[in-house]
Amino acid sequence: MAVQTVASNADTAASPVDLGPAAALSCRECGHRVPLGPVFACEECFGPLEIAYDFSAYDTEELRRRIEAGPANIWRYAPLLPVPADVATKPNINPGWTKLVKADNLARELGVTGGLYVKDDSGNPTHSFKDRVVAQALEAARAFGFTTLSCSSTGNLAGAVGAAAARAGFRSCVFIPHDLEQGKVVMAAVYGGELVGIEGNYDDVNRFCSELIGDPAGEGWGFVNVNLRPYYAEGSKTLAYEICEQLGWRLPDQIVVPIASGSQLTKIDKGLQELIKLGLVEDRPYKIFGAQAEGCSPVSTAFKAGHDVVRPQKPDTIAKSLAIGNPADGPYVLDIARRTGGAVEDVTDEQVVDAIRLLARTEGIFAETAGGVTVGVTRKLIENGVLDPALTTVVLNTGDGLKTLDAVAGTGLTATIRPNLDSFREAGLA
Amino acid sequence: MAVQTVASNADTAASPVDLGPAAALSCRECGHRVPLGPVFACEECFGPLEIAYDFSAYDTEELRRRIEAGPANIWRYAPLLPVPADVATKPNINPGWTKLVKADNLARELGVTGGLYVKDDSGNPTHSFKDRVVAQALEAARAFGFTTLSCSSTGNLAGAVGAAAARAGFRSCVFIPHDLEQGKVVMAAVYGGELVGIEGNYDDVNRFCSELIGDPAGEGWGFVNVNLRPYYAEGSKTLAYEICEQLGWRLPDQIVVPIASGSQLTKIDKGLQELIKLGLVEDRPYKIFGAQAEGCSPVSTAFKAGHDVVRPQKPDTIAKSLAIGNPADGPYVLDIARRTGGAVEDVTDEQVVDAIRLLARTEGIFAETAGGVTVGVTRKLIENGVLDPALTTVVLNTGDGLKTLDAVAGTGLTATIRPNLDSFREAGLA
Repeated sequence: MAVQTVASNADTAASPVDLGPAAALSCRECGHRVPLGPVFACEECFGPLEIAYDFSAYDTEELRRRIEAGPANIWRYAPLLPVPADVATKPNINPGWTKLVKADNLARELGVTGGLYVKDDSGNPTHSFKDRVVAQALEAARAFGFTTLSCSSTGNLAGAVGAAAARAGFRSCVFIPHDLEQGKVVMAAVYGGELVGIEGNYDDVNRFCSELIGDPAGEGWGFVNVNLRPYYAEGSKTLAYEICEQLGWRLPDQIVVPIASGSQLTKIDKGLQELIKLGLVEDRPYKIFGAQAEGCSPVSTAFKAGHDVVRPQKPDTIAKSLAIGNPADGPYVLDIARRTGGAVEDVTDEQVVDAIRLLARTEGIFAETAGGVTVGVTRKLIENGVLDPALTTVVLNTGDGLKTLDAVAGTGLTATIRPNLDSFREAGLA
Repeated sequence: MAVQTVASNADTAASPVDLGPAAALSCRECGHRVPLGPVFACEECFGPLEIAYDFSAYDTEELRRRIEAGPANIWRYAPLLPVPADVATKPNINPGWTKLVKADNLARELGVTGGLYVKDDSGNPTHSFKDRVVAQALEAARAFGFTTLSCSSTGNLAGAVGAAAARAGFRSCVFIPHDLEQGKVVMAAVYGGELVGIEGNYDDVNRFCSELIGDPAGEGWGFVNVNLRPYYAEGSKTLAYEICEQLGWRLPDQIVVPIASGSQLTKIDKGLQELIKLGLVEDRPYKIFGAQAEGCSPVSTAFKAGHDVVRPQKPDTIAKSLAIGNPADGPYVLDIARRTGGAVEDVTDEQVVDAIRLLARTEGIFAETAGGVTVGVTRKLIENGVLDPALTTVVLNTGDGLKTLDAVAGTGLTATIRPNLDSFREAGLA
């Protein structure tokens, strides 16, 4: 199936497309280059394709001014993304430029003295970082003449695809397991696209989508995380760009990133490297830390065991948005964590919930379970002496607590009183 | 009780506080002025107090530059708000500068040709416009030396107060009816403050809070929407400022605002008037339209009947965040709608749900029921020939659909299939 997909789509891609500084697709494994198109696997070695850019014409100071004068969303970085120069004028959900919160209360609790920041992606249009990657995939879909935006999903991605397609005037068709919780179905369905329940589990949904891409029935369909994956994945670079710009064009010393497929972490590293090469930030060391839930910790397990390969696991954790048991970019994550002097760590579901509460109580940020994973792992890494509390540290919150209310369902009233002052005093509230 | 509150708190307020351009409190009814302090009712006539400013020193172009160089949140307007000049350096949740979405798809559906925009306040930190008013009340609480932030609430306000207090290091104590839905309790409780259930309905909660303010037990407590109300209410002006700046320092021709207490609408008008007086926008006519749900439409009813007074109603609508049956600012809303050539209209719960779906389907924005009210009323006003589709129109969405999922609970899968292409084709999805 993969061979067929690569061949047929590469033909389609022969027509020239304007994706700004994106010059070609390049294999991460063997370096083989092919023209820009809706393909995701190398025809030579089946390695993952990623975007190769031509940034050679940029003058550093001019680029910095251009970025700073840009819109308050990811399109301020259009010169560094696979999008046309006029991308900001096209209908899209325009995510990004989310708050980098100086988390002084959390820093005190964790003993961080070097400056602690939370990059809070719950501020995106559908309240997760997925808006960044979907907005990017949408521009690729437009460039390739696709008319339907699609994906397989169990949560955040479905809403992001539905919303972006609605705004941009694309048809959308999202595939989910048929027995998903009703709340998640509503969140995905409200945008009015096709929402198709598949009688099977998430693996069945994914298998079906791969089949559909190779079939004439899937013609004109952009699957954001399959045939548009090389473009989609670049959206995560914007997290790195924003963090550095918001720090005053400075690299953080340490950054803690959640790991699902591992793509986000690898693209954040790619983004930081680009900023260094472009001269937008000083070239100095930074450490990238990966965060997983114990119930789905294949990369953390491999890191601790000193392995280069990642052994798949069957996920069992409340951090469902990170529950990928066989993460495609796992080996790259291991490589980056080791190369930068970082680490990969995991926390229990109980620690995830504690961390959600800790972040809410100290900074007023209500995070999804994935945010509980990064904050929990940050705490654990500090306790274990792995993360240096004297250095500037950025922790990612990639989603919104309103989407995983069940995780903190035990939280409730601190007191119940009758509506009078005596009852108030009796409860010790005065 | 009101007299006692006015007197005792006016004494406290004698010490000078730095709230920037705020010069005094002025009675909206009789114009009587008192020093800035935690008081909300005129000692002469019991009319509502509001902030009087001294803007006399401002040069228009210098002010415009100062605003444009400010942070991407409401504090860019610090020169026009009751806050100290260095407010942006203090710990707060920093709401605002939310997206003004050019809603071309929705415009086509509604037949608007003059430009239709949605001001989407679901992008605020706790995903409702309440963050604007709470952030403002918090600064007043800080100035007056309060250490506890409090409110009565049944929803959005509780979360906004909890989050802001957490970030700013205040104690919080939020009062809610004891039998609120579990989801809402969780959202309010997660920030870790006191969350007190009152055995009674929302009226009982409010009565108890008034009692507490007049009692020594409530000393040092800032009730954001009671004794801090004059400051709190000013937060809504920032919606007017942002809309005009985002339109390129231009007044919209028409603006559709939801009505709960009516405070938001009156302060938006105040904000627009200030911009005109300061020379930041051209002085030309604008129309303000108020939007209510039929099940709680006291202002709409009075408007249509040509009355100057508002007759209380017992609310029965899914738009719970607007369900104030006896809106304090109702008469002012009537006045503004009539003076500007606007109107007040209401829609049924069914129309609210349709409008939520319409906005999601056309623009990828998932609104709270209050957003369904404004979009639904906009549609109705166009159909009735009251709102001119050839003019620039801004519709407010003040909250997030994730908080009122029940409203669209009927939304679901468009198809269920087996994981194979035959089943896909049978369902007519190809």
